[in-house]
Amino acid sequence: MTFNIREGKKTDSKEILSLINELAIYEKEPDAVKTNIDDIHRDGFGEQNYFKTIVCELDGKLVGFALYFYTWSTWEGRPSLYLEDLFVLPECRGQGMGLALLKRLAQIAVKNSCKRMDWAVLDWNKPAIDFYDSIGAKHKKEWFIYRLEGNALDNFIT
Amino acid sequence: MTFNIREGKKTDSKEILSLINELAIYEKEPDAVKTNIDDIHRDGFGEQNYFKTIVCELDGKLVGFALYFYTWSTWEGRPSLYLEDLFVLPECRGQGMGLALLKRLAQIAVKNSCKRMDWAVLDWNKPAIDFYDSIGAKHKKEWFIYRLEGNALDNFIT
Repeated sequence: MTFNIREGKKTDSKEILSLINELAIYEKEPDAVKTNIDDIHRDGFGEQNYFKTIVCELDGKLVGFALYFYTWSTWEGRPSLYLEDLFVLPECRGQGMGLALLKRLAQIAVKNSCKRMDWAVLDWNKPAIDFYDSIGAKHKKEWFIYRLEGNALDNFIT
Repeated sequence: MTFNIREGKKTDSKEILSLINELAIYEKEPDAVKTNIDDIHRDGFGEQNYFKTIVCELDGKLVGFALYFYTWSTWEGRPSLYLEDLFVLPECRGQGMGLALLKRLAQIAVKNSCKRMDWAVLDWNKPAIDFYDSIGAKHKKEWFIYRLEGNALDNFIT
């Protein structure tokens, strides 16, 4: 059985949401997903889109996806492609689907004048880290990620 | 003398580029900026915008800026505000301009349905880290930033 990588469509939204939930389980945060189908429709396939997707299809079913958007590098003066999530169902791994998704994203990035692709990986996810190291990606160790959210965000604006 | 925080305009581009260069010097990478004025015009104030800015004006001159864009959280189902750069000229620090810029960004984020703001800080930049800690932002220690660029990106797509 061969798989097919293609752009995500609005009619994929339900399956994409299902894969997002599977990813949260894999990331040990099964209850973290607040996203619903309307959010996917509105922000991915609506009038003002915040993200794009590519999907991996096998036998008429989505078994993997990548969700990305464009950021901008003040030093390069060019957009960058930011990979927010890349996921392949555990039972479908080892067939090159993750590599194929990442390669397609890199092609999209270069085609859109991006000079780089960025993403974040959990420190315990050694298989992913080994994979990223093997393709020449670099861990930007000198950068710390900071986040302001929840009550801290609400309190800060007042 | 009081300062004024406002949205960046196309006519600010030259001063914004100058501040980007000052930031690179502060970040110990004085030769890293490849960006030119056309890049700022095209990607910030053109037909397809990749970034937005707010600026801090003092006595008719720009002395600080923040450059940001919207990303998307697959778990929140909402856009997030990503702060790419925040900078105030060294000679103008200590007057609350950085705080005012960050607060304005937080207000923009909340107004646009964002549940969070994210950014990255260099591990040696203790004054910035102390400031971010003081407002309740969290260091997301479990996430590593990865980047694919240059020859590694070119080689990967072939």
